[in-house]
Amino acid sequence: MKIAILGFGTVGSGVYDILSNQTSPLLANIKTAKILIRKGKEKKLPIMTDSIEEIVSDPEISLVVESMGGLTPAYEYIKMALTHKKHVVTANKAVIAANIEEFEKLARENGVFLSFEASTAGGIPWIASVEKARRIDAITKFYGILNGTTNYILDSMDESGADFAEALAKAQELGYAEADPAADIDGIDVRNKVVISCAIAFNSVIDAARFPCFGIRNVTKTDFDYFKKDQCTIRLIGEAERVGDRYEAFVMPNSFHRDAMEATVRRNLNIVTLYGSTIGELKFYGQGAGKFPTANAVIQDILDIYSHKTEYTIDAGKKIGYDDALRKNRYVIRTKQRFDDPSFHTIDKFQDCYYHKTGEITIRQMMELVSRAKALDDRCFIIKEANFQGEKC
Amino acid sequence: MKIAILGFGTVGSGVYDILSNQTSPLLANIKTAKILIRKGKEKKLPIMTDSIEEIVSDPEISLVVESMGGLTPAYEYIKMALTHKKHVVTANKAVIAANIEEFEKLARENGVFLSFEASTAGGIPWIASVEKARRIDAITKFYGILNGTTNYILDSMDESGADFAEALAKAQELGYAEADPAADIDGIDVRNKVVISCAIAFNSVIDAARFPCFGIRNVTKTDFDYFKKDQCTIRLIGEAERVGDRYEAFVMPNSFHRDAMEATVRRNLNIVTLYGSTIGELKFYGQGAGKFPTANAVIQDILDIYSHKTEYTIDAGKKIGYDDALRKNRYVIRTKQRFDDPSFHTIDKFQDCYYHKTGEITIRQMMELVSRAKALDDRCFIIKEANFQGEKC
Repeated sequence: MKIAILGFGTVGSGVYDILSNQTSPLLANIKTAKILIRKGKEKKLPIMTDSIEEIVSDPEISLVVESMGGLTPAYEYIKMALTHKKHVVTANKAVIAANIEEFEKLARENGVFLSFEASTAGGIPWIASVEKARRIDAITKFYGILNGTTNYILDSMDESGADFAEALAKAQELGYAEADPAADIDGIDVRNKVVISCAIAFNSVIDAARFPCFGIRNVTKTDFDYFKKDQCTIRLIGEAERVGDRYEAFVMPNSFHRDAMEATVRRNLNIVTLYGSTIGELKFYGQGAGKFPTANAVIQDILDIYSHKTEYTIDAGKKIGYDDALRKNRYVIRTKQRFDDPSFHTIDKFQDCYYHKTGEITIRQMMELVSRAKALDDRCFIIKEANFQGEKC
Repeated sequence: MKIAILGFGTVGSGVYDILSNQTSPLLANIKTAKILIRKGKEKKLPIMTDSIEEIVSDPEISLVVESMGGLTPAYEYIKMALTHKKHVVTANKAVIAANIEEFEKLARENGVFLSFEASTAGGIPWIASVEKARRIDAITKFYGILNGTTNYILDSMDESGADFAEALAKAQELGYAEADPAADIDGIDVRNKVVISCAIAFNSVIDAARFPCFGIRNVTKTDFDYFKKDQCTIRLIGEAERVGDRYEAFVMPNSFHRDAMEATVRRNLNIVTLYGSTIGELKFYGQGAGKFPTANAVIQDILDIYSHKTEYTIDAGKKIGYDDALRKNRYVIRTKQRFDDPSFHTIDKFQDCYYHKTGEITIRQMMELVSRAKALDDRCFIIKEANFQGEKC
């Protein structure tokens, strides 16, 4: 099978390198025929071109790897490739989360596949595992650490007592965080991965704008010290739960007891958990990003398409509806000023802050409290008490 | 596709129940046509029979689930089914570990598949994940908690301070341990799973008799207290590592720091880790046993065969050779008497025992020390210091 790679950054060059250098006999069947680079860039390899038309009109190329990232021109190029009856494999979570329904429809109409294992949890075989679990079980819930950059920052703060700015600077220095880190630290990247995971787990395309999305921009050293008193730490979690035809979803920092598996996830690693009706709880852990793990996931998708193992898994015929009062959870809100409200069963003064602990409340109630807390202190921090395992924080 | 189930115990009835009750549309294609029960047992369902000949000679049955357990008659029935050109799916690790090469050869000769996802790590998609990783990467190493019974015992001892006999009795009461627990507590069950995992990971059938196999029969409350001083705990680990055409393997208790993921694996759960050249480290966690998780794994194999996704993955053309001096590790040997040897860099007296810590030594050196330690104290306990993660114990 001949493929083209769009973009020759970290992921694209990783795909090319593995296909060129690994010795697995299966890979010998996959040849990189063309690589799209930006206009004006030096063509370091004879197979490089700056013409997308040249790629989509090449009848020998049956699959296109989109590894440019971002929304545009990735969106247009993916549509062009599908329309020209080329399979598309991508690691681009932003473009998939925003357009999954349109892309899936176009792929089916053209008798080709759109695969995006690498878009969510990088090298962890998460998408394929959810698809597989769903063959037998109803998936009722998933959650996980889905962003390596923020996990690196949280783990550094926890481990070294660094403050947020220091930990972010270190992550940038190591190449784990972008110069503009907003998509990571504000939870947008995780939100995209929750949308993609819901599409597979629940067979329903959900609206990213509806559910709460909080990041870690406001987390402080004091927050870690506060939770450490109870042997807890902080991790950024994306999650969703389905009950019948309704669902709730979050992107939020969660407190985890040190004995919870999530608390042991160090540096920029990822872990994701699913619950199925007969399989129970399954967890998957590994590299959520990085050149070779991500490229490995892209190539797994290519091999599945090559060996006719890919199936259409999203039909989104029956939509599920967002419900912000589906379940109740406990939260902690930290502000500079004391914030009195009957929702809080405990208000702790710790160092120079107040930590307000709620009882079991709905998302709707939590969002109301947060908007009032923000009015009091625009650097307030909100955290959910993880309730996934026996260990409570 | 019509299938037969041999044996109607925990796993067999679980397969029948899921196929009868789950609502996934894919499962509607799989029908249980016959169930083999023992001669003399009551036929509670009209599809029950006590004749294996009736099953293997039925041209409508294309797949046989062997869920009787044990070596015989499972061995004979699997061979009969394969010879009659029926696919075989089994959860029986003992019969697979002992006969994997013969079964694989017979399956290929008859143009059918032999699948055994459920034999190793129960509901965790471990075998399929190793097969998948191997499409791209050389697998260099795997290790894990592969036995729920012993993990339940170790976790109870750690948590409640129970002694071994109490924790075993509790595990038996809960149905986690057999009346004769030898296969679990002496590491035989884990050894079978290491043999099966090596066949998939390294494409080589290894000799179970060659590598060290230690269980937890001699572990004491004092051992947990000793390791707890350094924030460590004890888990039973099966592992293997390959370097070129040589390998080493172990079944041994390992000490893990509390911050290692393995230390957070509670009750009867399992976790398994693989290392691949481009994917890095992947971990898989879930139910390693139990009616529905194990039956789920059996049905995943059936669905793969039904949808033509199964491939032959073991050819065992090129064998790898056991090497008991491939790597060096650190061990701790506990005896009642003091045991002086230059291999030990530290000898701690703790409570009424001596804990002897080695430097980095080979398996061969360790086995020599153990045989001398056994001569001194036949209830001695040997433990490996886990070296899988950054956290040392």
